[in-house]
Amino acid sequence: MEQKIFLKESDIPKQWYNLAADLPSPMLPPLGPDGKPIGPEMLAPVFPMNLIEQEVSTQRWIDIPEEILDILYRWRPAPLRRAVNLEKYLKTPAKIYYKDESTSPPGSHKPNTAVPQAWYNKQFGIKRLTTETGAGQWGSALAFACKLLGLECKVFMVRISFDQKPFRKFMMQVWGANCVASPSNETNAGRKILAESPDTPGSLGMAISEAVEAAVSDKSGKTRYSLGSVLNHVMLHQTIIGLEAKKQLAMVGIKKPDVVIGCAGGGSNFAGLSFPFVADKINGANIKIVAVEPTACPTLTRAPFAYDFGDTACTTPLLAMYTLGHAFVPQPIHAGGLRYHGMAPLVCQGVVEGLIEAKSLNQTKCYESALLWAHTEGFICAPETSHAVAAAIDEAVKAREEGKEKTILFNYSGHGLMDLVGYNKFIEGQLSDYELPQEELEKFTSCLRDLPQAKPQKTGKW
Amino acid sequence: MEQKIFLKESDIPKQWYNLAADLPSPMLPPLGPDGKPIGPEMLAPVFPMNLIEQEVSTQRWIDIPEEILDILYRWRPAPLRRAVNLEKYLKTPAKIYYKDESTSPPGSHKPNTAVPQAWYNKQFGIKRLTTETGAGQWGSALAFACKLLGLECKVFMVRISFDQKPFRKFMMQVWGANCVASPSNETNAGRKILAESPDTPGSLGMAISEAVEAAVSDKSGKTRYSLGSVLNHVMLHQTIIGLEAKKQLAMVGIKKPDVVIGCAGGGSNFAGLSFPFVADKINGANIKIVAVEPTACPTLTRAPFAYDFGDTACTTPLLAMYTLGHAFVPQPIHAGGLRYHGMAPLVCQGVVEGLIEAKSLNQTKCYESALLWAHTEGFICAPETSHAVAAAIDEAVKAREEGKEKTILFNYSGHGLMDLVGYNKFIEGQLSDYELPQEELEKFTSCLRDLPQAKPQKTGKW
Repeated sequence: MEQKIFLKESDIPKQWYNLAADLPSPMLPPLGPDGKPIGPEMLAPVFPMNLIEQEVSTQRWIDIPEEILDILYRWRPAPLRRAVNLEKYLKTPAKIYYKDESTSPPGSHKPNTAVPQAWYNKQFGIKRLTTETGAGQWGSALAFACKLLGLECKVFMVRISFDQKPFRKFMMQVWGANCVASPSNETNAGRKILAESPDTPGSLGMAISEAVEAAVSDKSGKTRYSLGSVLNHVMLHQTIIGLEAKKQLAMVGIKKPDVVIGCAGGGSNFAGLSFPFVADKINGANIKIVAVEPTACPTLTRAPFAYDFGDTACTTPLLAMYTLGHAFVPQPIHAGGLRYHGMAPLVCQGVVEGLIEAKSLNQTKCYESALLWAHTEGFICAPETSHAVAAAIDEAVKAREEGKEKTILFNYSGHGLMDLVGYNKFIEGQLSDYELPQEELEKFTSCLRDLPQAKPQKTGKW
Repeated sequence: MEQKIFLKESDIPKQWYNLAADLPSPMLPPLGPDGKPIGPEMLAPVFPMNLIEQEVSTQRWIDIPEEILDILYRWRPAPLRRAVNLEKYLKTPAKIYYKDESTSPPGSHKPNTAVPQAWYNKQFGIKRLTTETGAGQWGSALAFACKLLGLECKVFMVRISFDQKPFRKFMMQVWGANCVASPSNETNAGRKILAESPDTPGSLGMAISEAVEAAVSDKSGKTRYSLGSVLNHVMLHQTIIGLEAKKQLAMVGIKKPDVVIGCAGGGSNFAGLSFPFVADKINGANIKIVAVEPTACPTLTRAPFAYDFGDTACTTPLLAMYTLGHAFVPQPIHAGGLRYHGMAPLVCQGVVEGLIEAKSLNQTKCYESALLWAHTEGFICAPETSHAVAAAIDEAVKAREEGKEKTILFNYSGHGLMDLVGYNKFIEGQLSDYELPQEELEKFTSCLRDLPQAKPQKTGKW
């Protein structure tokens, strides 16, 4: 029995799947500063119109241009793998499959959307993309995509990461991106913050403000902004993960998984694997679909469903989502990709409907699972991915206790080779757990009362 | 046409190939301190007898135990890939294939021998392995193998790397190895050096002395030493690379490559890919086989063929090989794996016979090639691997100039994700080239005159 299931390049999915086409209840629209639903044209200074069309589309299948596939072939189709060594260790009757998204050049699922975003921008005549990055996972993916497509790339990297974690910055440099510490002197937003607090460590919110400003203020009109998660078109591009996984499961005779798991920060890797299975669930399949988040940033498990801004500086449209409040300051846990205050609206609507379950895990449990993974399967996973590994282990143990031969599928969203400091701290006993206190949660979400209220719609079927 | 050629796990080679069986002229024997050929028993305190048997074997095919394959399946068979994007960029009629050894958990070809070495030691009743490591590539591979097989692993890491490059150390820690800075207070050799020079940055020679002492001085007899290159049994284990590549080339209808390329430090990744093709060449095939080394450490291209010690401290048997002298101090180029003073005797005998060609390249040319690789194929290669990339590009350009549709095959020995500091320095213009001055070479090799003389044998057929 083969442990690695490879799909031929010629069998790669040729279309992305759009969950918006199949949601049982409609999503609430994004709102503008006036509290009214925004039209596509309001996004035009920030994104190219072809991506805005995808953002608002309710078409079920959207063709993947051949030129995008030509770039994805560098690492796609990604392997589906069976964790036979972990299964043996756990003595579980469950089959644990995982989709290995760590094999891309930047080492995660992020280029699945970075490449299409760069390509559509180029088609639209754009010459330059701006973005923000925290620890650098997204910035390096966009740098990679822009280099292959011949676009300029400008990355505003949160200063404390820029100074303390130089390796992702060097990676962006290899792919020719211009990466600066944020706040910088290059934007009004940055200059204003620096004048007030010259020694600020920066934040993702500040970096977003700078990246958006750098895009919309370019008078040539040839610069746009790019976001690595949360938005509908990002989820769309990531569905290639789940669509490939379905074909690969079929290759080993599995009609459907019993459990599908992904870690969730902004939602993109979780959505990428799970949405094609959410569609099956809508059509009657019995699949448990689990989004795993950290207890330190419990967006889906404890936050209210509300209209909120996507950024700290309140410059984006209001999105209806589970949110800890746009001013939320997450603890410095090592899973940098899971520290966003909000969550992709499409994922949130899946949770509202009951199609998707959410759970939160402590980081020490996740690191323990990551070590067990490294000691059995051999590979070193990203701290974000360790949340999915831990949840998969929980499900496999449950299957053993129930004596059920379940098929568990999870998304291995990235490797941890750039995150070894976190492992070192865990092994040295320097990491502790953090559960967001209720009064903190209430403090951060209190700002939502002053914004338009969101009434989530659901059918109640799940 | 698929760019990635995957061999099924069930089609993995079940035997290693031993070039010693087919060499047209016999190799010169290793000599003991008395200048006489050593017997296997002299190696017994250092290595287990089952590996010593492989070391001296002239049997052509040696079975790979099923339990070793079970571990290798975690990443093997490794993909054979075609660099179509680089080909397009170079406008070459050549097909450039590469064997991707970067997909193993530690990120290089090294576990191909670390796993068998740990397994044979375990079979022999050994509980603990010791080794040395410079930048950490080999130490992390042995840590990985020991963890999966339940052996203890002790790594003596050159102090300057231990202090300046903590990430490989953290990787060893993830796999449970005990990694200490060398020289350490744990051995007589280490204590002696520290007493004389408390602030020494350490060296590979010192670390070897400590690792060997730590193995042979364990009175329980349950500790042995493990070496990651140079020796015959290491080359043997690596031949799985070339044997897989042959099957994969056959899958796309290629009977033989025209050019086979590998970078060479101690020789193991080069031997692993090339030896099965050297066998074909001995049997009449027309294949150009090229070992690439740095101009800063020109072992095959400029050093004499002589008997020399494998370590700086002169504790190993004398090996007949091309050598820059055991006291050679290499320049601090970034390809840490290519800075060994000697070279695997099997590789050297291939060069003596004319079966293998050697060439040396400057590091800035190699980094330029690595950037071109990252900008076309998208992946970031190890500084060592960049030597093979650069040589492959040279051959592809030559094929274009000659108008010949050659098949070029090279070994992609590892990724560069732990080596981004070197890329940063190159991009910032801080790296320069170094050609070993003739008087330096003569100074370092002068010690060889006092050792037994080696007369290389060859048939003169190639």
